[in-house]
Amino acid sequence: MRIPEIIKKKRDGLPLNSEEIRFVIDSYTKDAVPDYQVSALLMAVFFNGLSKDELNAWTDAMLHSGEVLVHDHVPGLKVDKHSTGGVGDKISIPLAPAVAACGVPVPMISGRGLGHTGGTLDKLESIPGFNVNLSVAEAKSVLSRHNLFLIGQTRDVAPADRKLYALRDVTATVESIPLIASSIMSKKLAEGIDALVLDVKFGAGAFMKSFDRAKELATTLMAIGKGAGKKVHALLTDMNAPLGFMVGNALEIRESIDVLRGGGPNDVRELTVALGAHMVLLGEKATSLEDARRQVEEVLQNGAALSRFAEVIAAHGGNPSVCENNDALPTARYKVEVSAPEAGIVTGIDPMSVAMAALAVNAGRLRKEDAVDHATGVAMKVKVGDRVHLSQPIAVLHHNGTGEAEALHQLRRAFTISDVAPSVQPLIRERIL
Amino acid sequence: MRIPEIIKKKRDGLPLNSEEIRFVIDSYTKDAVPDYQVSALLMAVFFNGLSKDELNAWTDAMLHSGEVLVHDHVPGLKVDKHSTGGVGDKISIPLAPAVAACGVPVPMISGRGLGHTGGTLDKLESIPGFNVNLSVAEAKSVLSRHNLFLIGQTRDVAPADRKLYALRDVTATVESIPLIASSIMSKKLAEGIDALVLDVKFGAGAFMKSFDRAKELATTLMAIGKGAGKKVHALLTDMNAPLGFMVGNALEIRESIDVLRGGGPNDVRELTVALGAHMVLLGEKATSLEDARRQVEEVLQNGAALSRFAEVIAAHGGNPSVCENNDALPTARYKVEVSAPEAGIVTGIDPMSVAMAALAVNAGRLRKEDAVDHATGVAMKVKVGDRVHLSQPIAVLHHNGTGEAEALHQLRRAFTISDVAPSVQPLIRERIL
Repeated sequence: MRIPEIIKKKRDGLPLNSEEIRFVIDSYTKDAVPDYQVSALLMAVFFNGLSKDELNAWTDAMLHSGEVLVHDHVPGLKVDKHSTGGVGDKISIPLAPAVAACGVPVPMISGRGLGHTGGTLDKLESIPGFNVNLSVAEAKSVLSRHNLFLIGQTRDVAPADRKLYALRDVTATVESIPLIASSIMSKKLAEGIDALVLDVKFGAGAFMKSFDRAKELATTLMAIGKGAGKKVHALLTDMNAPLGFMVGNALEIRESIDVLRGGGPNDVRELTVALGAHMVLLGEKATSLEDARRQVEEVLQNGAALSRFAEVIAAHGGNPSVCENNDALPTARYKVEVSAPEAGIVTGIDPMSVAMAALAVNAGRLRKEDAVDHATGVAMKVKVGDRVHLSQPIAVLHHNGTGEAEALHQLRRAFTISDVAPSVQPLIRERIL
Repeated sequence: MRIPEIIKKKRDGLPLNSEEIRFVIDSYTKDAVPDYQVSALLMAVFFNGLSKDELNAWTDAMLHSGEVLVHDHVPGLKVDKHSTGGVGDKISIPLAPAVAACGVPVPMISGRGLGHTGGTLDKLESIPGFNVNLSVAEAKSVLSRHNLFLIGQTRDVAPADRKLYALRDVTATVESIPLIASSIMSKKLAEGIDALVLDVKFGAGAFMKSFDRAKELATTLMAIGKGAGKKVHALLTDMNAPLGFMVGNALEIRESIDVLRGGGPNDVRELTVALGAHMVLLGEKATSLEDARRQVEEVLQNGAALSRFAEVIAAHGGNPSVCENNDALPTARYKVEVSAPEAGIVTGIDPMSVAMAALAVNAGRLRKEDAVDHATGVAMKVKVGDRVHLSQPIAVLHHNGTGEAEALHQLRRAFTISDVAPSVQPLIRERIL
């Protein structure tokens, strides 16, 4: 097979067969095809897309470029959740222990944050001692004992995706739904799951700004998952304002523990219960979505989810006392209040401005190699729809001496205050089953 | 300026400004941008094209990536011809001396053949001693003495094009009209011309198979030339059958000399006179196209064009006796006749089959580094429309011991014989002025 002929076929809108796709991905993984041919092919895919069959073959080739976990030693259907990412999205942290407590094994491999705020791994690492880099054998052992592990991607999982992503990043070929979808699904399928719940976000703080593009991504992700024989549900959720009150690594752990105690912000709790219910249903531990929902609510109320989190923290080498009190979590040296510049109703909180504020105080990173400050971030005091009076505190910036001015500038522009109440938008816009 | 942002703009259909285009081409010429970013950009150009302004800027950046010749030492408007290439296309060889003999300086830089048959340089090199690699100073001196030089591209002319072409060749980005057009025009504009006549071919033996694509290429080439302040005419000519009877390097020199003697095949003579008339008109040595045509016919009849060719051969170190007789030209050791398999009318001669026959006996090359046999090729005995009887010789294969079987196989399938006369197609389909 000749690579230029394969590029030409895709360029001219002809379908590639699975042998051609496997040849490209395999050769690229072992450095047998130069970057310049692959980048031309990626750009042709950007323009001409991938058919359902091509997409399944492409994802399968990426999946099998590395190790694929198998958890036959753990009974039951293994279920995970994937979120396309948002500001203040700490849902995995209360969700995973809750679902595990309902009897569903959750082999969760998460990413680090890139672009503004920390990822699930960064948040977990704000818990002293928490080791996200378990070996595969260790992770499997933790799964069998606690129905849950919370680890980072190893170098052996989908290496083709790592190479392709690095190339896409510098050749303007990131924003392609088939390439995004195959990247996500190759990593998720490598976890050894039987079912997956997708949280695909749309809006100002999401990768997909429009609902339609988000829905296109959701259906593409589902098609790949189903093509690989997995059960997949997708929720399309609103990301036009930050989730919860906290944005920042340790701050979000605190908020997550509030949810695991049966409290926490309404939106975080609502999304945790909704996603958890779909996971429990797909894990076949409930007779209906309503039954699944009741189970998740119950483990959040009765402490079962929280104690499961404490066990899993300990299993990862972390300090489980964070589930009792905040003493062990890092705190920032400085707290600066932002107050309402006028009286009125909060009609909008721009998630990107909040994210930029968090980034300014090092709660996130722009480049992979940047370090993250686990203590810093933003604690908002109000939600969209809240009435505020002049000079009322609306947010507190937590920082360690850098980025204060830029962060405050960003925070002040984040809040829109008006005298007309905003229309209320549902958090979960659509469910695709 | 960041290259990924530039790729993204082009990918999203936004126009690039001339600074961005110059930045890409200049950086690439000096190896400051990796191939993988340029190939992604080229693929985006394949899909989204280049606007008129972008195309002018792109060509100008390629043109100024290297040396641009200036011929102020020679009075008069300098005019050249460019052909997009065809089978048996030896027109430059009788044309250039004829136009020079009419008083128009012709600074002609030609290419080698790639894909099946030899190029103008290969044909000239079949004349013993002919040196196509004159220095710029030597070439300028030959131009001032004889109104003509016939040289190959130097390493200093449009180096950006050489790098880009090599990358396009392996990334399926050759077949893009703006990229083809800017490649051609950057090299032609570097010759130091005031005007250009284009011979854009369409049909089975041409790069552009369809008339419409050929016309699109012609108008694109003209727009670039006019954008650079040059006068440009374009002829769209039929390449559904080989030009003339001869295909092969020394064989085509013989046929060209026949034309310079006032004879030769009708089609070769017709195209030489037509292209020559446009060159003489653009060179402002004639009052009308008809006047220009008469002048070209006259220099072909009265020996002025032939003696100009002899002078120029000598100036390039070649043996001018080839203009008197064929003794000095190389001949092949073997001649094998192909005869008509049935009686009837020749309704088609497939140019690609003839080209493949010539390639089989090494009259052309597939890779740049391949050597060419100057003596071999195909001498056809009939033209489309000719009536033949059973076993009448229709072609003679000239070879030196390799490729005979493959060449005869190709030659036998080249000729279509039927009992219905074909409709006659004009050689020159359209002229764009």
